[in-house]
Formats: sequence, structure tokens, C-alpha cells
Amino acid sequence: MSLFDLPLETLREYRPERDEPADFDDFWARTLQEAAGHELAPEFVPHDAPLSGVRVYDTTFAGWGGHPIKAWALVPEGAGEVPCVVQFIGYSGGRGLPVDHLAWPTAGFATLVVDTRGQGGSNHASPGATGDPDGGAHSQAPGMMTRGILDPERYYYRRVFTDAVRAVDAAAAHPSVDADRISVWGISQGGGIAQAVAALHPSVKAALIDVPFLTHFRRAVEITDRDPYQEIVRFLSSQRDTEEQVFRTLAYFDGLNFAARGRVPAMYSAALMDTVCPPSTVFAAYNLWTGPKEISVYPWNGHEGGGSRQRELQLRHLRKLFSVD
Amino acid sequence: MSLFDLPLETLREYRPERDEPADFDDFWARTLQEAAGHELAPEFVPHDAPLSGVRVYDTTFAGWGGHPIKAWALVPEGAGEVPCVVQFIGYSGGRGLPVDHLAWPTAGFATLVVDTRGQGGSNHASPGATGDPDGGAHSQAPGMMTRGILDPERYYYRRVFTDAVRAVDAAAAHPSVDADRISVWGISQGGGIAQAVAALHPSVKAALIDVPFLTHFRRAVEITDRDPYQEIVRFLSSQRDTEEQVFRTLAYFDGLNFAARGRVPAMYSAALMDTVCPPSTVFAAYNLWTGPKEISVYPWNGHEGGGSRQRELQLRHLRKLFSVD
Amino acid sequence: MSLFDLPLETLREYRPERDEPADFDDFWARTLQEAAGHELAPEFVPHDAPLSGVRVYDTTFAGWGGHPIKAWALVPEGAGEVPCVVQFIGYSGGRGLPVDHLAWPTAGFATLVVDTRGQGGSNHASPGATGDPDGGAHSQAPGMMTRGILDPERYYYRRVFTDAVRAVDAAAAHPSVDADRISVWGISQGGGIAQAVAALHPSVKAALIDVPFLTHFRRAVEITDRDPYQEIVRFLSSQRDTEEQVFRTLAYFDGLNFAARGRVPAMYSAALMDTVCPPSTVFAAYNLWTGPKEISVYPWNGHEGGGSRQRELQLRHLRKLFSVD
Amino acid sequence: MSLFDLPLETLREYRPERDEPADFDDFWARTLQEAAGHELAPEFVPHDAPLSGVRVYDTTFAGWGGHPIKAWALVPEGAGEVPCVVQFIGYSGGRGLPVDHLAWPTAGFATLVVDTRGQGGSNHASPGATGDPDGGAHSQAPGMMTRGILDPERYYYRRVFTDAVRAVDAAAAHPSVDADRISVWGISQGGGIAQAVAALHPSVKAALIDVPFLTHFRRAVEITDRDPYQEIVRFLSSQRDTEEQVFRTLAYFDGLNFAARGRVPAMYSAALMDTVCPPSTVFAAYNLWTGPKEISVYPWNGHEGGGSRQRELQLRHLRKLFSVD
Amino acid sequence: MSLFDLPLETLREYRPERDEPADFDDFWARTLQEAAGHELAPEFVPHDAPLSGVRVYDTTFAGWGGHPIKAWALVPEGAGEVPCVVQFIGYSGGRGLPVDHLAWPTAGFATLVVDTRGQGGSNHASPGATGDPDGGAHSQAPGMMTRGILDPERYYYRRVFTDAVRAVDAAAAHPSVDADRISVWGISQGGGIAQAVAALHPSVKAALIDVPFLTHFRRAVEITDRDPYQEIVRFLSSQRDTEEQVFRTLAYFDGLNFAARGRVPAMYSAALMDTVCPPSTVFAAYNLWTGPKEISVYPWNGHEGGGSRQRELQLRHLRKLFSVD
Amino acid sequence: MSLFDLPLETLREYRPERDEPADFDDFWARTLQEAAGHELAPEFVPHDAPLSGVRVYDTTFAGWGGHPIKAWALVPEGAGEVPCVVQFIGYSGGRGLPVDHLAWPTAGFATLVVDTRGQGGSNHASPGATGDPDGGAHSQAPGMMTRGILDPERYYYRRVFTDAVRAVDAAAAHPSVDADRISVWGISQGGGIAQAVAALHPSVKAALIDVPFLTHFRRAVEITDRDPYQEIVRFLSSQRDTEEQVFRTLAYFDGLNFAARGRVPAMYSAALMDTVCPPSTVFAAYNLWTGPKEISVYPWNGHEGGGSRQRELQLRHLRKLFSVD
Repeated sequence: MSLFDLPLETLREYRPERDEPADFDDFWARTLQEAAGHELAPEFVPHDAPLSGVRVYDTTFAGWGGHPIKAWALVPEGAGEVPCVVQFIGYSGGRGLPVDHLAWPTAGFATLVVDTRGQGGSNHASPGATGDPDGGAHSQAPGMMTRGILDPERYYYRRVFTDAVRAVDAAAAHPSVDADRISVWGISQGGGIAQAVAALHPSVKAALIDVPFLTHFRRAVEITDRDPYQEIVRFLSSQRDTEEQVFRTLAYFDGLNFAARGRVPAMYSAALMDTVCPPSTVFAAYNLWTGPKEISVYPWNGHEGGGSRQRELQLRHLRKLFSVD
Repeated sequence: MSLFDLPLETLREYRPERDEPADFDDFWARTLQEAAGHELAPEFVPHDAPLSGVRVYDTTFAGWGGHPIKAWALVPEGAGEVPCVVQFIGYSGGRGLPVDHLAWPTAGFATLVVDTRGQGGSNHASPGATGDPDGGAHSQAPGMMTRGILDPERYYYRRVFTDAVRAVDAAAAHPSVDADRISVWGISQGGGIAQAVAALHPSVKAALIDVPFLTHFRRAVEITDRDPYQEIVRFLSSQRDTEEQVFRTLAYFDGLNFAARGRVPAMYSAALMDTVCPPSTVFAAYNLWTGPKEISVYPWNGHEGGGSRQRELQLRHLRKLFSVD
Repeated sequence: MSLFDLPLETLREYRPERDEPADFDDFWARTLQEAAGHELAPEFVPHDAPLSGVRVYDTTFAGWGGHPIKAWALVPEGAGEVPCVVQFIGYSGGRGLPVDHLAWPTAGFATLVVDTRGQGGSNHASPGATGDPDGGAHSQAPGMMTRGILDPERYYYRRVFTDAVRAVDAAAAHPSVDADRISVWGISQGGGIAQAVAALHPSVKAALIDVPFLTHFRRAVEITDRDPYQEIVRFLSSQRDTEEQVFRTLAYFDGLNFAARGRVPAMYSAALMDTVCPPSTVFAAYNLWTGPKEISVYPWNGHEGGGSRQRELQLRHLRKLFSVD
Repeated sequence: MSLFDLPLETLREYRPERDEPADFDDFWARTLQEAAGHELAPEFVPHDAPLSGVRVYDTTFAGWGGHPIKAWALVPEGAGEVPCVVQFIGYSGGRGLPVDHLAWPTAGFATLVVDTRGQGGSNHASPGATGDPDGGAHSQAPGMMTRGILDPERYYYRRVFTDAVRAVDAAAAHPSVDADRISVWGISQGGGIAQAVAALHPSVKAALIDVPFLTHFRRAVEITDRDPYQEIVRFLSSQRDTEEQVFRTLAYFDGLNFAARGRVPAMYSAALMDTVCPPSTVFAAYNLWTGPKEISVYPWNGHEGGGSRQRELQLRHLRKLFSVD
Repeated sequence: MSLFDLPLETLREYRPERDEPADFDDFWARTLQEAAGHELAPEFVPHDAPLSGVRVYDTTFAGWGGHPIKAWALVPEGAGEVPCVVQFIGYSGGRGLPVDHLAWPTAGFATLVVDTRGQGGSNHASPGATGDPDGGAHSQAPGMMTRGILDPERYYYRRVFTDAVRAVDAAAAHPSVDADRISVWGISQGGGIAQAVAALHPSVKAALIDVPFLTHFRRAVEITDRDPYQEIVRFLSSQRDTEEQVFRTLAYFDGLNFAARGRVPAMYSAALMDTVCPPSTVFAAYNLWTGPKEISVYPWNGHEGGGSRQRELQLRHLRKLFSVD
Repeated sequence: MSLFDLPLETLREYRPERDEPADFDDFWARTLQEAAGHELAPEFVPHDAPLSGVRVYDTTFAGWGGHPIKAWALVPEGAGEVPCVVQFIGYSGGRGLPVDHLAWPTAGFATLVVDTRGQGGSNHASPGATGDPDGGAHSQAPGMMTRGILDPERYYYRRVFTDAVRAVDAAAAHPSVDADRISVWGISQGGGIAQAVAALHPSVKAALIDVPFLTHFRRAVEITDRDPYQEIVRFLSSQRDTEEQVFRTLAYFDGLNFAARGRVPAMYSAALMDTVCPPSTVFAAYNLWTGPKEISVYPWNGHEGGGSRQRELQLRHLRKLFSVD
């Protein structure tokens, strides 16, 4: 891959105009309030994993609309109350299997690995177990990006972000979790979700946001020809008169608007050859983030970003922030 | 493309074992009966098309679950009661625009062009206008093939086939349509739907089935690596323990089982270089069809099959069968 | 696809220098005069199409060099003298079958669908029936773009544009056509031909020009790597010393020079993600068009442009312009 | 590439039925006789090449229809009468430049490198300089394979093979060439042409035929999906009713029918991973060749076959056969 | 992907002839004996990983030729002597980072993750840290498959397999490892190495072999066109006279010959749509394995095989076999 | 291909900053001095080629580290002392076969065609016969670009450039070669090597440098996504902390630094659509070349550049420069 986006010096200063609906905060306040009308009802069913140092719970809680959302909770064996990392998943994947998620527990954290509703049915590396009962009121492009996109109330990510906010509550409800030390984390779509939750949930204390998706939609659909952003382009190419409506909806879900509300310490990462989530869309959010922040830049990587290297940085960072050793 | 499936002589004799659930007929009788509990409520709103010889109606009727299904009804200007062709659409597409569907009206038929719920949101050539409110109870692969696939009751095509059966009723309800002369027609997914409706709806009088999809699933997923059949493979690669459940569901929707119930005159077409709907899957259905039948074979074509050439054959065939001139 | 050409605001002002040979008008006057030396000899053989509302004629007329050019004439059944749309075809295709061309007849127009000589032999969706007897005096790249390209007199499109001008005469010769209400229309190559004919034939009254090809060659071969413009690049990569000669020839056929002679009302369309006929090449012509004009812009589409949506706009536009209802 | 055709043991025995027109010999006798009505008129214009050991002549002779055919003649400096290799070119290429053809002259042979009319306009490695004035009487697929294919009299390769037979006469007319020691040679299309000329021209004394194209058309179009054989498939996919006519024409040009008339010593080569000219099509001809013969098999190569390795074998073979040292 | 290899029933019985050099055992005895002339010199340098439950050691030992080989040793915190899994890596990868390898430690095992010399320099997900000082005595294809392939003594995998045998000794040398409970494990190339080591090292007690590479070379290079097996084909296509020599070398390294010497319990996995290591090559080895054995078959997966699902099966299997809980 | 790099006018002025190590000259002086410690020991074994006008010698000489390097020497039959062209090979290829290299001998030059160590094992068109015994001290990406790249002393091209400098000495040692008239030549990698040798070897008298590789690394890896430059990017994407070290090493091998030391007449070529060695990297070197120079620009070609056309220009140029006729 070659360098295709802005040069690094420009990226470091890039602060595009945001398109924020006047009722953005109201929209989300109302959304979360409605969701709160459903009992969270978190269940932590002990799961017989072939592991010794970690206890695993097959977890279910009520997400948006009271729909059941699946997750894995992993807790270090024999520890008392520990901090927790609530983890969201990249596009197309699901919570996978417990053995896929051992870094945080081995480092002294509980972790809650949360399904993204409806996803995880085609990715052989991370299967999911959660449906999205709302198929939408109109035609959609294959994938999830345009499900319900003509109406913010019915847009798929309204449900996903709400599920994710409630996942933090579910994590806090686990007896081994110290509710005052919860961080969110995610890569790509997971990063986009973490970014939103960090802005929406008042008791989140830190955010780890890697090569986030769902951020700066307008630029993204114009400069990359890769999925999943291209799902939106395909939709617009078919539903030729919906552009205004689509971007009106997306404004309620754009990471730029969540970043502008970030208050907790955020650790971002961006990759300069990332054609899936182009670096300018990531830096735009990072530059707008209003809380404490740092960013790791991987100049020679694509969407894989820093991989395990970034994981190690995050482990050190959060162990320090949450006083784990 | 090269020849990759069985030789033509073998295709002409190919009659695989069918996998038919014991309650196949019950399943469908119950399904259609439940659907009948919702008023059909067909609406034919005159549409201001820039056309002279054809009247166009923006049509809505209640499909499965009473959900609104969109269609275009086109009727030759000034004719009395005419026969009707109910047309179903290929995968990814929707009802498109009225100007896309002028062959049957110009040939003396009404036509009802029926949306496939949830589809038509990414195909720039045939946009749709109908949602599928049921997003499914589990993870799915992008696309529609695996939405609800773990349970015949919730499988996406249960709703689609039911919508399609009711589309015939909607057509019959139009004042210009002679309900005794209704044919179904479709290409690819549309052909699979037409094949099912011809078996399920007692008053259909003819079937035009081109390179049908949704037929002989087991062989299809084993010999072609192309979408949309591959959506099922991707699902199975991720949801590793669902094979039995998936094929149990598909047995209720497999074109082979509908073909074995075909009674009206059927006109099939197959293409020998078709890697999307391989010719053996088409011939399997054709050979099992129990009513009068004929098949056009296009030896040098892929999934496009006979194209407009086949259209002309169908027009002649149906004008004769339904005494139009 | 992503946005790869100039931004829309710049496109709206983009007026490149034209490269016009001093004898451009003479060249074409002489060309058409020579062609006029051959009898037009239009034949309209009634064709037994399985249609009721439209009469179809298998049409032949003498094009450049007196060569037989095939076309379909379709006339609304039972109407008197009607306006006519002379339609030219996209690259690789031919006149197809009558059932492919029912929009204009259903809307109250005759239409003449004209083969492009030599093309239509590989496109399964629109077969042709007309040869180009002149194979050229030198090596060529596969395809038609470089046949005879070293000499304006022998260049392939000299024959094609001449055929097309004479197609208008053939249309006018049909007894059901009102020769005072003839429009030309085409998409891609067809748009490029229509653009030229509108400038060359004095009795054309309107032009519908969609995502035109054969326009602004110099920029096109430099910014797109897609066929058919790339045929020219491949030729230049092999015939390393012909650049000057090639562009000298192309200057006689460049849509920019025809646009600068446009006088009838023109309706253009352009697509911002069109990598086949990049939007800057289309806007360049549109901006230079000297007659009344309007343009539809499809920001999220590739070379398919507006598709049937654009068709509906054209039907309304021309029904109004030619007083049809 | 993997092994995709028959196993080597089967290839060695593979002798398919030939489809030979009753008037095959008459057709070619008449064709060559007609051509003989045009003066050969070979011109050998000394060409100022920057070479010392080889004299180069820019050559022209009258081919089919008296059309001018270009070639390079290269003769070892200072030798007397030498044997000559008449070389035909692979698909898409032309005679290239003199420096591309130094192996035979350096080995003591004259060589005549013959353009294939109309080709050589897109291949940057071997430009051509000869047009094919006959563009055909019907639509064609891009490329040369289907130009005039509906009629053996007008088929492109009738002209090419005739040019090639006359190229042997042109070679013999050069003062430095010993007309009793002429061999033909070619790779791919060049091999197919050489194969035909060896059968058609009585004074050819040897044939070098590498991975020949234009041989066993029926099998080729069924088992490979690669160009140029696929040009025929694309034509048939568009011109849906021409199959019988097309294969009737091809029977006059099929290498199998020329091989069955082979009488001079032939040196073939085949590559087992050749997806362009599959080994079964090559072995079919080799097995049918009726003269003395040998074949080099390259088990791990694709269409490049033996490359320079085979060239060395041919040089040794022909130096021995023609007593050169 | 579609099914492209033998049907499952045939796979279960597939036992091809083996090509085993007479001195196979001598070759390996001599090779390991020579290696034993170098001190193993294992170093376990404590590594400051941000983990709590696992101790990490940056490990080096002397492999073939005494060359330094890097590995990670991970040991569960606070456990006594534990069994150990020695893990080999898939083609192109290296030992990665410690956080990538937490499943075995969390399950109560030590693990030694061993670099493959020279690899790990292009895979962003698993970097390596070990060079292969021997670049070979002849030309090679890019990659490692043909480095030194003309001579069994200099072949790359002679060094790799020797390194791997000595890795078992290095593992046994760690104070926390119970040398009587060592298993080998690997996926793809790692599986091929594990298979060899299980046959070559007398104190290995179990083998986990997933979709093994380096097995049944002859069939592999004939039926798959994918890397890395294709590196061998590319070499043979260039070095046209080395086929015999190449396969003579490979016979000393073919997994079939190691499988025929398997004596410990082996757990294999195969995937039916695996085009990288086709299932017939895997089943051939499995069927030849002479010790206790079981195989997991993933019918709908490609080379990813069972992924974490298989990992869970292996964890349970080995915990039982080695009495861990 | 489209134009993707700077416009030609800008290219003509493009002179980027060079990154030259302070000890650049020392590094190379020391390197060549060390190499001089090994006897050159050139062997010219007469090779039985089936040629008459050229004598061929299978040549070996001691390169870097005294390693044996293979070459072909070709000398015009019967000439006395002639000038010589030392030819270096493009990436992946080797010295091929003698019949591949007849242009210079036929034009009155000796030529020495030099293997590139380790390469020539996958290219079917130009096999090599020389190994690179030094496999490197660390992980590498497949291919040669990153072998030893972490240390200038161990970097692969240190050995290659040294071999190449000594190849000039080997050429001079041939009795038929006039050591005062030696030119270097190469295309792509061969051009990069020739450029370096022209700067490093004092008795070289001319340089022919076509579309050179190994030049302006920093820009190359940023603007092209094609191999072989991308090997470096893949290495950096895996070995995430080596960027500084890698570019430090490359600075000793960058063509820009050799061009700045060019003193003999140089003939360059560049192609404007060359995505392998982008034109800006070539012009950067050309513009920095300090000796007499000229450049051929091929505006419509990719990495093939001028091909045989350029060869003819070079033959004329060098015949004049070296007074050959």
C-alpha cells in the first residue's frame, strides 16, 4: 500500500467542520432513557472453559428494546474486585470464543466481550451469537451499515450504541468488577463504538480507540472505495434521492460528534496506509477529542494498525491508570 | 467461462435424491393460513408515469405478518380484462422503475412487479422500496440468505415466498386483471420464487422459470464458489456447528421440493456456463417438475442465460397459452 | 468507488482549451457530402414481434460508403405521425432485440435503435447485426478505438458518425415519423455519437446525452485506466511514435468540438464516481455546449449514471418539448 | 498453476475425432489459387540497423487479396545461400524490431519475421505494421478471432494463413535464401500458423510448432476460460444462434486437420500447466501429425512453454537437419 | 470456496504410495547428531510483559549449526512443574509477541513459541526475530520453500526441523517444565514441523497437527495453485531440468514419511475447502500415522480450519492426556 | 494505466534532497578493498552453443566474499579486441541462456551478462545459476529487498553491487575485450546496479540506465504499492520499530547518491506510466547525474519502458561513442 491520505504533518492539524444536529444530546438522552425502561437483567452463567487461571461466564443482558445481547465475561481466577475492560468487536465479527480474549484477564483485568447484534455470522475467526430483531423499514445494502439508515430512530447503530452503553452497566454488575475502574476498548467498528460509549456513559473512566470506524462519514465515503464504508455508497447509488436523509441520520452517529464530548483519557491509534478507516478520519476525531489523549501512529501499516504491539502499550497504560500490577 | 458442470447429456437425466421434510406440506399450509389472517388490503395508487400506452399503479399489499409490500402494477391502456404476469426479482434488486417493465404491457398483459422485502438497497439498476422488519434472532452473514436460517419459522424466505403467494392474490384483485390467466415469472432468485409460488398457489396457471436460484442447495454450495450461494458457506464457516440445522431449514425452501409439486405448464431456461446457478441445479428441478414443461438451453452463456431472446420466447409462449394477440 | 476527479464546484466551471483542427468543419462537410453520394435506401421490413401496442420494423439503410446499417424501428400502434428518438448504443453493444426498447414507443414516440458497425459481437445483453467492412490500413488494438486511427479519413468513428447522421435521415423517412420532431439520444458511446450528430445534422431538434464517451480524449487517457479509453493508451504503448498523429486524428472526433457547435436543447447527465467517462470530461463538453442545456448530476454513481431515473426525466422533458401526452 | 488437463499418459494417447469438411482440400486449393492471381512482388529494402553481423531488410510482399504484408528479413552478413526460418508471431504481436530476432541469423540462418495482419497494435513488446483491410461483414468480438467467423470465405484466418503461405514464397525469393531449406516456426498463434503452412505449402521442409493455438477449437473453448479462445465464447454468448455456423467455419482452420496432413519433420512443444493452449489440444495435433515428429514436454510451465530452452533445442535440431555449422 | 478435492469418504481411505529414500532414517540420525555437537545453551531472560498471571522469558537456544534461535517461553505464575506445549508457527510468521500466546499458560501449561528461522519479516501479525544465515548455494524463488532445494544437506527445512527438535530440548531445560509431559503443536507449516518433530524426538509425548503443510508435496504441487506450495512450481518452471533433484530432496522432508513414524497420540484437523493445504494431503498423512489418532474435519472451512474451536478441543484433550485441571 | 506521478514539466526539474551518510565514500572504498582481498579468478569455459557468429563462454568469477558468480560472456566470432557491455539483470531474473543476449555481439560488442546472486529461481524467462550464501542475520520479507537490511554491512545489495563492480574486472580480463571501452547496462534492478557501478568503478566509460530500480527509496515506498519496493513496506509493517535503521541502511545503496557521483556519459530512460519504478524516482537520479547525459521519455508506457526501441537507440549511441561500425 502507498500513502494515499494527507501527510502526517497535515493530519496532526486536521480539524474538519462537524455536522451536528441541534438535538444531538436530546436524541441520545431520550434513547438511553427509553432503553432504561427495560430491566438490564444481566446473567452470568459459568462456562466450562478448559482454562485454569480465568473464570468464564456466558453472559446475557437486555440491550436496546430489551433484546438479549450475548457477551463473554472473563475474570482472573482468585482475584478480588478488579478493573474491567469492556470490549467491542470489529465489523463482521462477534464475541468469538473465550480463548480469544485472554490478554486482559492475564494482566489482572476482568473483561466483557460484547457481541454486536446481528453480526458474527460470516467471520470464521470471530463468530457471534446475537441477532438484531429489527430488520428495518426499507431496502438495505447487504451488511449492517444501511439498515434503517433513512431514520435516526430506526438506524441500526442506535441499537448497537445503546447495547454498548448498557454493556458497561452489565460489566459493573458483575461481583468481581470494580465499577469505578471501567474502560472501553475496541478496534475499527469496536473503536467507533468505544468512542461513542465513552461519550455517552458517565461512569466510563478510560477509552482505548484503535483505527476507529464510524467516524467522519462524509470524508470516508468520498476517499475510500473499500468496505464497509462503501455499503453506504452502494445504497446511495441505488436509492438515488436519499443523500440528505442519509447524512442527516449519520450525523447522530458520527464519531466526530462523540469525540467532541470525550472527557476521559483516550488512547488512540492510527495507521497511515489504512484504506479501510483512512487516517484523516481517525485524526479528525483524535484532534477533536476534548479530554486527555495520546495517539500511536503506525506509518507502514494498513487497517491492522499496531496489532499486538498496540495491545502491549494499552496494557501498560491501563495498568498504570488503574493501578494494577 | 468454461464448462464446469456435468455434460449436457448427463444433465438431461440428472435426478438427485430430494431431502423433503415429512411436514413440508403442513408447514406451508400452516404458513399461508396464518398469513391469510391478515387482510390483503391491496392498494393501487395511480402513478404519474411519463407514458401513454400503459397505466401504472404504485401498489401496496399486506404480505407475511401483514407487512406492507410494494409493487408496480402496469396495465395496457384501454384494454379490458387482460391476463397478468406476476414478476419476481433477482437477488439484490427491487421493483425498479415502471419504465423497466414494459414488455408484458406492450404485449397485451398486465404485470405486477413485486419487491423482495429488504432487498433493492444496493443495486443501482433496480432499487427496491420494501423493508423486512424481521432482522432475525441470530447472527447472519451479510445479505439475506442466512437471515433466520437456524429456524424454518424465522427463515427469511418463509416471509418472501408468502409475500409472493399473496402477490398473486393482489394481482387478481386488480380490476383489469383476468384472475384465470395469471402466470408467474422470474429470473434467478425471481425464478426460484416463481417456482415456489407455482407450487403453492392453486390459481396460478403458468410458470416461467429462468436460471432459478434457491434450488438444490446442497449441490450448489458444494460446486460453486460464487455469491449468493456462498453466503451460506460463509455462515457455516463461522457458525461451525449448525450444518444440520441449516440444511434442515433449507429443505423447506428448496426448489427441488417445489418442482416435485409443479402442475402447471412450466417454461425453464438454463445456461451451461452459469457459475451462479449451476446448470445441474436447474436441470435437477426441471427434471423433477411434474407438470408439462420445456427448457431452453444456452450453451455459451453464464448466469445471464437467454436474456431478451428468452423474453421473446416467453412472450410468444404465453400469448399462445393465454390466447392473446 | 471514491471521488477521484475534480470537486463538483470545479467541474461546474471546468472549460479546458479545445484542440480544433482548422479544417474541422470542412472535414465533416466533405465527409457528409461524400456519403450523400450513396442512396439512403431505407428499408422498413415489418418484424413479427410478440407485441401488441407497438409495430416493429427490421430496418436497413445505407451508411458511410453505402454500407448496410441495421436498426430497429418501433412505432406506437395506431398513432399517426409521432416524434422520434434516434438512439445510439454504448460501446460493445448492438441494437439488441425489439423488446429492449419499449420506453419511447410506450411514451408516444417512434424510436430508431441504430447498430454501431462492427460492434455487438461480444455483449450478451445487446447483440448487433452490422459489420464494418473497413478493417483499417494498420495494426490496431483489440476493440474499435484505434481502427484506422492514424488517418482521420480512415478512422473508424468517421464511418460511425456518418452512419449516425444518416440514421436521422432514415428515421425521417419512416411514414409514421414527424421529421420536425426528431431527437437523438445515447449513453456513453451512444452519448458521444448523439452529441456529434446533434452538431452535424441540421434537422435534429433535441439531444439527450448521458455520460458521454469520445469526449475530451486527452484528459480521459491521462486520468482513467479503464477501457475503452485505455485501448488508445495500449496502442500508443506499442506504436511508440504515433502520439502526434493519433491526437491529430482524434481532434476531428472529440466531443468538445461538437459541443462547441451545439445549438439545440441538450439534456446531459454525469456521474461523479464514473471511472469510465470521468465527470470532468463530461462537464467539459457540457460547459462548452452553446445551446440551451441542463445537466443531471449523480454524485454516488459510476458509469451507470442515473439509469432509469434519468430515463424518466428524459421522457418528461421530451414529451414537454415535443408536445406529447 | 495446477495440473488441470488430462494426465500425461492420457495425453500421449489422446486422438480425438476430427471434424473435417468434405471440401477442406478444395477450399484451400481454391484459396491459394486465387491468391496466386496477385503478383507476390516481394520488396527487400535495406534497413539501417545498428548491427554488424546481420543484414536487415524491411520487407513487403502481397498477401491475400494482394494486400501489402510487412516482414523483417535478416540475413547473416557475408554468408552465401543459407537456409531460412520463416517465423510467425503470437497473438496480439507483430514483427517487432530487428534486434528482437537475432538467434537464427547468429546461428547461420536467414529468417523472415512475418506480421500478422491487423495485429501488433497493442503489444508493447512486439509492434506490428500491417493492417487487415477487411473488417468483416458482421459484428465481432474485440480481437481477431471472430472477424468474419460466420463465413469461411470471409474468416480472418483465411487471409492470415494465405499471407503465411505466401511468406514462404517471399522468403524463397530472397537472393541469400536457399529455397530448398526452408522451415516454418511459431509459438502459440505462430505455432498454429506454422502448422497450417507446413501442410499447405509443398516446399516447406520442416516445422517448429510451440504450444500451438488455433488447434482443437471445440475442446479449447470448453476447457479454458482464457483469451484468446474465449473471444469465441463471448461471440457465441452474444450471437446466440450461430454455434453451428461458427464451428462449420472453424473446421476449415482447425490445426487438427492440418496436422493430419503433416508430412515434414515436426518438432512440437507442450506445457502441462498451459491454460491458454491446453496440453490436450496440443497433443491432439501432435498425435495426429503424420510426418516424422518429436515433442518436448514442459511439466511445470504455463503458456511460456520451454522458452529459450526450447529455442536452443530447435537451433540444434535445424542446424543438423539443414546441415549448418 | 467450493469442494475441489476428493469426497470425504474417499479421503478417509486415501493412502498414497510414499516416496521414501533408503537412507531416510540415517539422514535424520546423522543430522541430529551433528547438531548435537553444538551446545544447546538455552537462555531464559525474564521479559517485562505487562501481565500478572504469566511469567514471560525471552528465550534463545542454539539450533542447527549452533545458530541462535529465538522463542518466547510463557509459564503460569506460581505453578510448580507443568506440562509444556512447544509451538511452531505458520509460514511467513514468527514468534510474535507474548500477548499472542496466552491460551496454554492460562490453561495450566508452559508454552515455548519458537521462531522459524528467516521468517517473520513480512507478516504484520506475527513478527519474527531469527535469521537464517545460510542463503543457499543456488538461485531460489522468493520465500523459503526452495532455499537450498537442490541438495538435502543444504535444504532450508533441514535446518528448521533440526531447530525444532532442539526446541523440545530447550523447553525441557526450563525449570518450570515437566519434561515428561511435552507436546508439540502447530498450524499449517507449524503443523508440518510438529509432525516431523513428533517422529524425530523420542521424548515428545503428544502431537497437535492442524491443516499441516510440507506434506505430500507431489500431490500438493499438482492440485493447488496457491502459495506457498506454488513456490516450488515457480522454481521448477524456471530451473527446467531440476525436477528429479527437487523431489529427491523433498522426500527427506515429506510429512508422509514422518507420519509413517508417528507413535504418540496425534490430534489432527483438516478443512475440506482448504486450497492451501488440500484435505487429501492432510488425510494422506493422518491415514498413515501409526500411533493413536483422531481428526477433526471442518467441511465448510478453508485453510483457517477450526480456529479457536479446534483450540478448545486441543486444550481439553491435552489437559486430560497430561492430567491438568 | 493512467498518469499518477508528477507532470513531465515538473519531473524535468525534480531534484529532491538526498540523504547521504557522512561515510558513504568510505563505506564503499572499504567494501571494495575488502573484496579485492579475494582473487578475481575469472574462468571463461567455452560453451557449446548452437550458434555460428558468436562465441559463448560460461563464465565464473569471485564476487563479494570470494563467492562464485556466474555469467555468460558472448564475443563476436572472428573479431579482434572489441568494446564490451556488462549487463545486469532485472529483479527476479538471472543470466538466462546465451540465445537471449545476441544484440550486442551482433552489433560488434562483447557482452558479459551477470547473474544477480540468489535470484533467477522463479522467473521462467531468465533462470539464474548463482546462490547468495548469506541468508542474513534476521527475519526477512520474501524476496531479496530486505535480506540483511538492518545493517549496511550485511545488506544484500552490498554483496550484489560488489559482485557487479568485479564483473567489470572480469570483463576486462577477457582476451577479446578492449578494457578501455567498457559500458555498463541494465533495466530496472539492472539499471540500478549499472548506475552504482558507473559511480564505483573508475574504468567504466559509459552507462545505459533504463527505468532504474533501487533509486530514491523514500519516495518510492510512499507512492507505489507494487513490488519489489513493497517488500520494504511489508518488512516495516511487521518489524514495526526498524524504520530509522532501514532507511539508514538504504542510504548507502540509494541510486540518488550514486547518480550524484556519475561522471561518464549516461543514457537514461523513463516511462511516465511506470508504477514499478515511478518516473519521479528516475528523473530524480537523472537530474542529479553529474556527467554528460540524455534521457528518453516514454509517455504511454509502463515499466517496460522503451523496450527494443530503446535498445536500438543504445546500440547507435554506443557504436558512436566507442567507434564501432
